[in-house]
Amino acid sequence: MLAVSRKLRLSFFEVRGLQCIRERPIVHVTEIRLRVTQALVLVAGLTLNAQTLAQGDPLPSWNDGKAKQSIVAFVKNVTSKGSPGFVPPAERIATFDNDGTLWAEQPMYFQLAFALDRVKALAPKHAEWKDKEPFASLLKGDLKGALAGGEKAIAEIVMVTHAGMSTEEFERIVREWLGSAKHPKSGKPYTEMTYQPMVELLRYLRANDFKTYIVSGGGVEFMRPWVEKAYGIPPEQVIGSTIKTKFELRDGKPVIMRLPEIDFIDDKEGKPVAINKFIGRRPILAFGNSDGDLQMLQWTAAGGGTRFMGIVHHTDAEREWAYDRKSHIGRLDKALDEATAKGWTLVSMKTEWKRIFSFEK
Amino acid sequence: MLAVSRKLRLSFFEVRGLQCIRERPIVHVTEIRLRVTQALVLVAGLTLNAQTLAQGDPLPSWNDGKAKQSIVAFVKNVTSKGSPGFVPPAERIATFDNDGTLWAEQPMYFQLAFALDRVKALAPKHAEWKDKEPFASLLKGDLKGALAGGEKAIAEIVMVTHAGMSTEEFERIVREWLGSAKHPKSGKPYTEMTYQPMVELLRYLRANDFKTYIVSGGGVEFMRPWVEKAYGIPPEQVIGSTIKTKFELRDGKPVIMRLPEIDFIDDKEGKPVAINKFIGRRPILAFGNSDGDLQMLQWTAAGGGTRFMGIVHHTDAEREWAYDRKSHIGRLDKALDEATAKGWTLVSMKTEWKRIFSFEK
Repeated sequence: MLAVSRKLRLSFFEVRGLQCIRERPIVHVTEIRLRVTQALVLVAGLTLNAQTLAQGDPLPSWNDGKAKQSIVAFVKNVTSKGSPGFVPPAERIATFDNDGTLWAEQPMYFQLAFALDRVKALAPKHAEWKDKEPFASLLKGDLKGALAGGEKAIAEIVMVTHAGMSTEEFERIVREWLGSAKHPKSGKPYTEMTYQPMVELLRYLRANDFKTYIVSGGGVEFMRPWVEKAYGIPPEQVIGSTIKTKFELRDGKPVIMRLPEIDFIDDKEGKPVAINKFIGRRPILAFGNSDGDLQMLQWTAAGGGTRFMGIVHHTDAEREWAYDRKSHIGRLDKALDEATAKGWTLVSMKTEWKRIFSFEK
Repeated sequence: MLAVSRKLRLSFFEVRGLQCIRERPIVHVTEIRLRVTQALVLVAGLTLNAQTLAQGDPLPSWNDGKAKQSIVAFVKNVTSKGSPGFVPPAERIATFDNDGTLWAEQPMYFQLAFALDRVKALAPKHAEWKDKEPFASLLKGDLKGALAGGEKAIAEIVMVTHAGMSTEEFERIVREWLGSAKHPKSGKPYTEMTYQPMVELLRYLRANDFKTYIVSGGGVEFMRPWVEKAYGIPPEQVIGSTIKTKFELRDGKPVIMRLPEIDFIDDKEGKPVAINKFIGRRPILAFGNSDGDLQMLQWTAAGGGTRFMGIVHHTDAEREWAYDRKSHIGRLDKALDEATAKGWTLVSMKTEWKRIFSFEK
């Protein structure tokens, strides 16, 4: 899959390279124009295969249904010069939720799985956890009992596993976990639990000069170590929840320490607030999968002009999971009503996606 | 100046356009290679003038002194493939303080001048300010009296002028003020009080695939309306201090309201913290002018590999202002010592800059 993606990206560069040749001011001199044209025709022939690959079907894992058609129509509309919906490249901001939108979130948020594994790894150094909730239940394998303490219990688990180290140490811990942990259902590394159709969509948007962002309720420093490789999204385009951090000199060496205190929860009303703070432009496309994304979608929709609001709907119990209005994880209820009322694009996994994970045959 | 800058930028694109022609995989077919080469030679001739302009001296407002030489040497080192200091384009992050580094900050921070003007504009609706400090003194023209209340007084002035409206309303207010306000010494609009050598430096870095960021103690939403035109830095690459904001539906329409509460002060220890939170990569070049930038410079320096730390030193009382260790605005004391001890690049305005403002002859 990676080899294919590199090839595709290369071919986009090639096509764009040719466009930039055409934009040279060479048309003023007839002799040059002729030679360049001859060369272009021949070069164009050489790159035809790549071009077909890239332009023929940029979304091969999508069925040719309503969702794919509306995406392609939107992209053509905002990128065609002279089109009523044309948007200059600098303003082509696209924001994506992560959990349940770009990768799976069942049977539990993957970051929670990370936290639980970390509790186990740290337990030998914390004898006191044997008698202290939520750790005692957790270490006995009783997840339900551990989470019975509600948000306070979750916050305690998150803080002992996510704070108290430098940002560099935390990055190393995340990388190590990703290198060994496996998803309980598929047995695959978590970074392979990404949705192939969405990876194609991100690539398609970038090939059309969109700037793609993650805007997730997950921790920003939990995502940055792996999302560039998984989605092609660089660290500076990842927005997420944060804990407070502190700059200090440790033996004269500057470090940024992670503190056990919530800084910002990037969910619900927090998403447009963070988009405004970090990006300072309103997205023209946003994709989510749950009520936690509703305000981001509303903020995007209210921008005027051509906009695209998309929702991944988990409808495929066989290939993935089926859940919406009553789920504790990724509940999709109010946003489902609003999407229906306002004509946002609902992407039913079962009908719209030919393939969900890249490891499927 | 704008005409020249557009021309320069265009010429960079042209040069890069030619490079991307050279990178086509056309060398496999001899016939094509010949024709393309012929065309290239002729096209290259046409763009020679632009090329000379762009590559001949990318920093024309800098004297050929130590500072300019160290900048050019650094850029060559990190951009030359095979060089021991080579840094891939994606990691070429450059962060710049704004007040006193990219534009002037005397006789007071320009954002404070904005706040004071706003108090005057809002006074007719606030009869109570006549008897209430710091407003009473301020409205009598007694700035010193108004600021005698210290940080509390400043916070009060900032909150009544910067909060209580939507982000869109605030942007409009900033734009209107910039359109009419004049700097008290030069009589020029504040947006012309930018340093021409630094504008050239930003452009030079971007032409070498750097991503240029502002990391300022100033308010992020005070900067975003004008910095793209002034410096070529888009909204999503502006980091600054923030007040809290809140997403809400106003008559069914989503707005982001500015609240009278500090969210984050992007100064001193706050700068590396914000760089880590917003960018998630460590800069390889940082520029500041005061002790407020020291931690950003330390964080940059500690990254290992080739790094550039620069400080604008205000030494020109005639063309700009001369101040450092004892100034209340932009104090440069500890950072001056550390720059000297560690060999960071000190840019003395008086000796290193041929021209300071673009409106100078």
